Amino acid sequence: LRADDERLIRALHQNYDVDLCKIDMEALRDLSSNLRSWNWRACAIVRESELIALTPLPCRHFGMAVDLGTTKIAGFLIDLETGKTEAVKGVMNPQITYGEDVITRIHFALKSKRNANLLREVVLKAINQMAADLSADAGIQGEEIIEAVVVGNTVMHHLLLGLSVDPLARSPHVPAVQCALDLKVRESGISISPGGYVHLLPNIAGFVGADHVAMLLSTGIYKMKGKFLALDIGTNTEISLVNNGEMTCVSCASGPAFEGGHIKCGMRAASGAIEHLYFSDQKVEFFTIDGAKPAGICGSGILDAMAQLYLAGILDTDGRMIENHPNVHSYETRREFVLVSEDTQCGRPAITITQKDIRELQLAKAAISAGIQALLDQAGLSESDIDRVIVAGAFGSYLNISSAVTIGMLPNLPLDRFQQVGNAAGAGARSVLISLNERKKAEHIAGHIRYFELANLPEFGKLFLKAISLG
Amino acid sequence: LRADDERLIRALHQNYDVDLCKIDMEALRDLSSNLRSWNWRACAIVRESELIALTPLPCRHFGMAVDLGTTKIAGFLIDLETGKTEAVKGVMNPQITYGEDVITRIHFALKSKRNANLLREVVLKAINQMAADLSADAGIQGEEIIEAVVVGNTVMHHLLLGLSVDPLARSPHVPAVQCALDLKVRESGISISPGGYVHLLPNIAGFVGADHVAMLLSTGIYKMKGKFLALDIGTNTEISLVNNGEMTCVSCASGPAFEGGHIKCGMRAASGAIEHLYFSDQKVEFFTIDGAKPAGICGSGILDAMAQLYLAGILDTDGRMIENHPNVHSYETRREFVLVSEDTQCGRPAITITQKDIRELQLAKAAISAGIQALLDQAGLSESDIDRVIVAGAFGSYLNISSAVTIGMLPNLPLDRFQQVGNAAGAGARSVLISLNERKKAEHIAGHIRYFELANLPEFGKLFLKAISLG
Repeated sequence: LRADDERLIRALHQNYDVDLCKIDMEALRDLSSNLRSWNWRACAIVRESELIALTPLPCRHFGMAVDLGTTKIAGFLIDLETGKTEAVKGVMNPQITYGEDVITRIHFALKSKRNANLLREVVLKAINQMAADLSADAGIQGEEIIEAVVVGNTVMHHLLLGLSVDPLARSPHVPAVQCALDLKVRESGISISPGGYVHLLPNIAGFVGADHVAMLLSTGIYKMKGKFLALDIGTNTEISLVNNGEMTCVSCASGPAFEGGHIKCGMRAASGAIEHLYFSDQKVEFFTIDGAKPAGICGSGILDAMAQLYLAGILDTDGRMIENHPNVHSYETRREFVLVSEDTQCGRPAITITQKDIRELQLAKAAISAGIQALLDQAGLSESDIDRVIVAGAFGSYLNISSAVTIGMLPNLPLDRFQQVGNAAGAGARSVLISLNERKKAEHIAGHIRYFELANLPEFGKLFLKAISLG
Repeated sequence: LRADDERLIRALHQNYDVDLCKIDMEALRDLSSNLRSWNWRACAIVRESELIALTPLPCRHFGMAVDLGTTKIAGFLIDLETGKTEAVKGVMNPQITYGEDVITRIHFALKSKRNANLLREVVLKAINQMAADLSADAGIQGEEIIEAVVVGNTVMHHLLLGLSVDPLARSPHVPAVQCALDLKVRESGISISPGGYVHLLPNIAGFVGADHVAMLLSTGIYKMKGKFLALDIGTNTEISLVNNGEMTCVSCASGPAFEGGHIKCGMRAASGAIEHLYFSDQKVEFFTIDGAKPAGICGSGILDAMAQLYLAGILDTDGRMIENHPNVHSYETRREFVLVSEDTQCGRPAITITQKDIRELQLAKAAISAGIQALLDQAGLSESDIDRVIVAGAFGSYLNISSAVTIGMLPNLPLDRFQQVGNAAGAGARSVLISLNERKKAEHIAGHIRYFELANLPEFGKLFLKAISLG
């Protein structure tokens, strides 16, 4: 044995039955000096026959799962030895400065190469800061993170990797990349162990991304007997129908209303947002996030308000607000319902739901409801055939299912058929971080799910119009 | 088929029976926009199941073979379709500013990380300039070069890659890397097609590098019946004995004399250097490079001078210069033989061979001769058993074999058993550039050749002393 690389290969073969095919260039650069300065005792981290890092003892290695949302980024630091989550972080996606939704960001990116690079850089910076913060929290070095998994929608995925988003912007919204990717850390721009890898789950379509795959994966419904609906509700809502393993999905443009966008007193789910409310004796009872003074109303509160107004007869089935109610104020053509009056607000303005807000919500809920109906129609099923409805995502976890059913956004099924699963995309990302088998399953899902474009369905207009009305 | 990557994978599978496993990240980044702007007609360059580049039609792809010598760098541009050499370039290795030989460069590199980086940068710059010049000569774009092969000695190899050279500096001169490497162009610092690869042939030992492997490969002796000696003569001389496929090699510190170093009127093989000479009727007849006025004497000329002086009885078998000869001048303890007298030089100084020069040459030739003898002894062979002696390298191509035999540097065999093969390392590099099979053979050679350190042989001192005398 004449060279250090051969000695290492031999030692791994003889002691651990590991056959190296490749040594990462970074690991190779310092191989000789490290082996000597560590007195020939080192931890060899091998990934699919490649030595990706050589570290001093004791052996420690971590992974980072990232749920890269349009609005928020969630990060999880996992000990790859134990599978334990060692730290969790959430930050806003800084791309939001350049556009609230994916369409605006695509158009920003398309204006110039510089813009596209900017979007890539800011999100990389946020992910790298997250890696640093997670490491600090867990008391480890960033270089001890040897693998990252990133899941996001297709636009987030493409912008992160610097892929062309041009075809995503136009119908039929073709992604550049559908396949799962394993990138060298150095190719990705993410700052963890330089010899490590970043794994990106496969996408399904232009508006159904790897986050939806991760969600389906973590729920396990792709391999279960039964009929399932699984929804990720947001500005864009992805819905899958899984019928005894046969998967079909669609994407609905549900708009920003559920994130408080285009709503007069709307706000994100932050401190002071009314997240739930109900009417009791004509009085509005509400709960705010952190129990703070009400500052506005977020998605789940808006949904409750609409359901309560409808149940109280203040909205008719067409969504029109009645006039003769003490809380309904009319100003010329505008009409609004006062949820929190000005005189209880210590000088801050009243919190109201306007007729225009109701219209926004109707469009949003109609998009989702029509999407579900289209999926059922294509499969020859009706609502009542569905065994379970899985609602994922941040908004999906906080919404009051019964309000969503009341306004006709979700199928009219017994409440025990609904399951709110929280950040299922993040859970899916964590599971593929620690398991190659889960990666294969994710590829199975992306490879077998059928996608169709709602806009191309001749009957979609009719479904959508029908879904506009409440109840 | 929902995404561009899948369409491409499908098209390659259906039309060419090629199964892609991976798409290079750079190729992926512009995949969608390129396919559309080229109207879905493109050339997909696939290397071992990886798409490394997507280019517009017509399909053209080139390779670059680089023989990275301590002194000179030779580059060859090859059309990978036809195998034809399209352009050739030679430049000095700019690392020479930081040390003439590999030992000086190692010590320079070891002084600081900055020094090591500097050596890496200057040689990369030279290789990249060479790639640009070769491309310009052949009328192609640098990005059309999709693969490079680099062969050099182990120190050149390590400095190019930025590997630690610390253990190379000390006995037993252990290389960091023996195995062949396939590096992404982006990892190598070489500027050709960003998705392409740089292949580095395997090394044998600290002072027997990939260039020797390439030389053995190109001569084909590793697979031939018979007994062969193969030498790469330079500051360091690598010698292999191949006995019916059984290979053994050594490295001899032959010093800079053959490159004109440490020789009073020595110079490199450049215009005006005396490259050959003989004595005719006590008169020195000489030939200079380019037929220019004599400016000095290069390796092959020095060798001739020594042989002619010995044959004329002006040097005895111990290498001592006689006094009583019209051309021999003595100054106190110094003595020298005038090859070109001052009065024929139009004001330039005379060109002489000093007693000290002869001593330098004796050390150099003894190192080589003792190395050969050690190899023969180990194999239980004698000089006369050797079927063929292959002499490679620039100096090896120009030296007069009969002079080398006369002074006892090369075995005393009939001249028809010698073969001068020119830049065999460069030829080997070109053959592995176009053939995966040749790469396998190179790995076979490096994996099966036995190397031993001459300094560790108890009898080496004796062999060396014996080899000092001429004849």
